Amino acid sequence: MQLIDGKEIARQIKAEIAAETAQIKNSGGKTPHLAAVLVGHDGGSETYVSHKVKACEECGFNSTLIRYENTVEEWELLEKIDELNRNADIDGFIVQLPLPGHISEQKIIEAIDFRKDVDGFHPVNVGRMAIGLPCFISATPAGILELLKRYKIETVGKHCVVLGRSNIVGKPVATLMMQKATPGDATVTVCHSRSKNLKEMCLQADIIIAALGQPGFLKASMVKKDVVVIDVGTTRIPSSQTKSGYRLVGDVLFDEVAPLASFITPVPGGVGPMTIVSLMKNTLLASKGEIY
Amino acid sequence: MQLIDGKEIARQIKAEIAAETAQIKNSGGKTPHLAAVLVGHDGGSETYVSHKVKACEECGFNSTLIRYENTVEEWELLEKIDELNRNADIDGFIVQLPLPGHISEQKIIEAIDFRKDVDGFHPVNVGRMAIGLPCFISATPAGILELLKRYKIETVGKHCVVLGRSNIVGKPVATLMMQKATPGDATVTVCHSRSKNLKEMCLQADIIIAALGQPGFLKASMVKKDVVVIDVGTTRIPSSQTKSGYRLVGDVLFDEVAPLASFITPVPGGVGPMTIVSLMKNTLLASKGEIY
Repeated sequence: MQLIDGKEIARQIKAEIAAETAQIKNSGGKTPHLAAVLVGHDGGSETYVSHKVKACEECGFNSTLIRYENTVEEWELLEKIDELNRNADIDGFIVQLPLPGHISEQKIIEAIDFRKDVDGFHPVNVGRMAIGLPCFISATPAGILELLKRYKIETVGKHCVVLGRSNIVGKPVATLMMQKATPGDATVTVCHSRSKNLKEMCLQADIIIAALGQPGFLKASMVKKDVVVIDVGTTRIPSSQTKSGYRLVGDVLFDEVAPLASFITPVPGGVGPMTIVSLMKNTLLASKGEIY
Repeated sequence: MQLIDGKEIARQIKAEIAAETAQIKNSGGKTPHLAAVLVGHDGGSETYVSHKVKACEECGFNSTLIRYENTVEEWELLEKIDELNRNADIDGFIVQLPLPGHISEQKIIEAIDFRKDVDGFHPVNVGRMAIGLPCFISATPAGILELLKRYKIETVGKHCVVLGRSNIVGKPVATLMMQKATPGDATVTVCHSRSKNLKEMCLQADIIIAALGQPGFLKASMVKKDVVVIDVGTTRIPSSQTKSGYRLVGDVLFDEVAPLASFITPVPGGVGPMTIVSLMKNTLLASKGEIY
């Protein structure tokens, strides 16, 4: 069994991005600039955004954090988005989700110029990804593919079972895994809450991408020997043993499944750290004008 | 075994659309108007477009056919698209594919205002479909789902195997079949040219949607009893027994597979006739402003 060390891969990629950024700056090029809009004070969102700002520093990017209270009106956000769309110095920006209930997340997402949509949530980017055109691919699916690539995990003709059909993980990662590409070219099955025979399906899988958000869902009895397991689950569970008062648990019963797996991601330290470098990669691509 | 009569369902839906259109016109509403751009004189394209124009008549729509020779320049088409985008009387329009090699199909598709893209090929429509938002769904996937619906074929929790991963059939129909919707909510596997164990996968399927374009690919030995078979294959084969000099053959060895199936579509007369009514439906939706 080989552990897929997302933290180490993320460190390597950040170093690569930092090196390229330094070179761009040295030759008089533009410093990539990411803006993040944060509404309210949700603990998770605060943490994610601060990690993103820190990653920008590590990569040599400029970053701008724009904060609003929970009481912000939708039109105020839309006005800010319009301003960011038109600000030539901002290469890409994100609006951290979730947003308060009185604001339509979909309206906000669609207001972002797709050429600056480094989160890859705008329909144009989702559609172009499905078609197989250059686009901003959203962070988690991109991070998963990068891990498979860096660990040289064979995907061609393999049976990849995706657990979960969310818009931000299950569906896009399934689309990418079936694409004529490397990684990709896999036979892909998407299972979800309404699936029957889920266990039988998992038992056939060469690669399992678990993105259900159900702690410990995937057990040893559900996988075959030498399976590749990518655990996208990140459920917060209260814990007295951490400073933050919680710990992250994945969808996979790691201790049970790991001995059977050929490759497996831990939680934390697997897919998680990759999502932020995917965002950094998209910001660099945006800055270089390589997608649009 | 029950034959899925696409021709009859298409006739019913056209009658429904015609009735609704008549009502709209009687109450002083706008007559739906579809425009089609046809480049060159490809036999298949000529046939498809003439069927579309005829369907418009049957539904009570206005239609406009715009023809160009094969030598048309890309900019001329783009100019025409711009004109159609701005023409308030045109509710939707299509550019019949394929186009000559010197014209970028993708550029043409993306030039169409997505609010008039009744073919559903624009990235915005592809993306919105993937996300599960209201959009124009492309004709073949929409036609397949309509057949499943009209024949009340159970899809929830069923294992649906899609053969083929094209942008116009395989990928979108897979996305729709896994969606939280009816029809939908199926466990979906997408197989393609690089898949191993394709036969084993088909043997597990409750529903098979064959869209490979390989005549007679699906044989009796590859399906289980009571499978539902949707045959999207339409390969033209020379024939001395038809007026046109060719006949259409599907991906399924119908005579062998039909006795095992609970439901099956014939070729021709199955999915084919549904594609045009999907286009009519989208045009009516566009005219009523129900999507955008």
